Amino acid sequence: MNFSSRLLENAVNEFSKLPGVGQKTALRLVLHLLNQPEKDVELFSEAVTRLKKEIRYCNICRNISDTAVCEICLNHKRDKSLVCVVEDTRDVMAIENTNQYNGVYHVLGGLISPMDGIGPSDLNIEALVERAKEGEIGEVILALSATMEGDTTIFYIYKKLKDIPLKVSTIARGIAFGGEIEYVDEITLGRSIATRVPYENSLLK
Amino acid sequence: MNFSSRLLENAVNEFSKLPGVGQKTALRLVLHLLNQPEKDVELFSEAVTRLKKEIRYCNICRNISDTAVCEICLNHKRDKSLVCVVEDTRDVMAIENTNQYNGVYHVLGGLISPMDGIGPSDLNIEALVERAKEGEIGEVILALSATMEGDTTIFYIYKKLKDIPLKVSTIARGIAFGGEIEYVDEITLGRSIATRVPYENSLLK
Repeated sequence: MNFSSRLLENAVNEFSKLPGVGQKTALRLVLHLLNQPEKDVELFSEAVTRLKKEIRYCNICRNISDTAVCEICLNHKRDKSLVCVVEDTRDVMAIENTNQYNGVYHVLGGLISPMDGIGPSDLNIEALVERAKEGEIGEVILALSATMEGDTTIFYIYKKLKDIPLKVSTIARGIAFGGEIEYVDEITLGRSIATRVPYENSLLK
Repeated sequence: MNFSSRLLENAVNEFSKLPGVGQKTALRLVLHLLNQPEKDVELFSEAVTRLKKEIRYCNICRNISDTAVCEICLNHKRDKSLVCVVEDTRDVMAIENTNQYNGVYHVLGGLISPMDGIGPSDLNIEALVERAKEGEIGEVILALSATMEGDTTIFYIYKKLKDIPLKVSTIARGIAFGGEIEYVDEITLGRSIATRVPYENSLLK
């Protein structure tokens, strides 16, 4: 692209580093910002700077937080003996949105992925093992993606936790509610038949 | 969405004000920035602040520029008697990318659009008339979108310029190069038959 201004070019280049944003989209976003009042643009750039500078990670569950210990870990109504292990803060938000979970979390910060050079030591797995060793946890739920990386991470964590007296479970896999059998992929359908459950057990208690 | 942090929520809200960015996309962008080194995030937010604070508009053509007069207007090889009127800087970039135009520009900063409350006085039309009155312009090319707003703006500018001795032209409309007749919309096809040109004239001189 032929830019008439280095400032414009610079801003467009910065925006096009964002995931899923190409040069044309970046230009559209930058020109939009340029048309906003100066105060709004300052609020925008301040939000970004403050986020990076002031954000903290909860000392207990490593979730994104404004304080040393996050609201969920501080909440006395939460069941501290139930720990749900997730990949990142987006998964915490997804599970919180279900309003069906009353335990606490442990955020790994990623999944084991040798292809991307991410090993177990890059994740918050050691901290999870330490938490488990303290003896206050009764069950660890591994709520990780049903991918190669998720399965590898589940297996690694399972091995790390197997000598500690607690229950380790994974979230249920199978066809989604509202899903039609004919459109379900072969692997999911095959596995959901192999791992069928007695009808009584499929009902919510 | 249930945010675990006000800083995060604030940044996501700022991003979701951008055109075409919803809350989920905003969250993805913000978490991406959060994973970048602090220096990169500073560069990002600095680029935005500097853009808004330091950007200027060329005194002659009103295009976005780092200097009081833009590079195109300063270029001695450019034909100053030929002025192409465009909506915004994106159109300047699009025309520059063709490498087929050697004149200068005049950026309106928008189109007349009563529905959005944009009247002629909100645009740089008066400045164009002033430029034209100086007598150095031989031809004004109106390169505006083929929409209702574009046509209205073209008509308004045409009336403003008609007493000044210069040529006023619009860019050619018709079927695009590489376009197949059967897929062209009815209006374009109908008009392109009505405004047909002698074969000799359709060849580039």
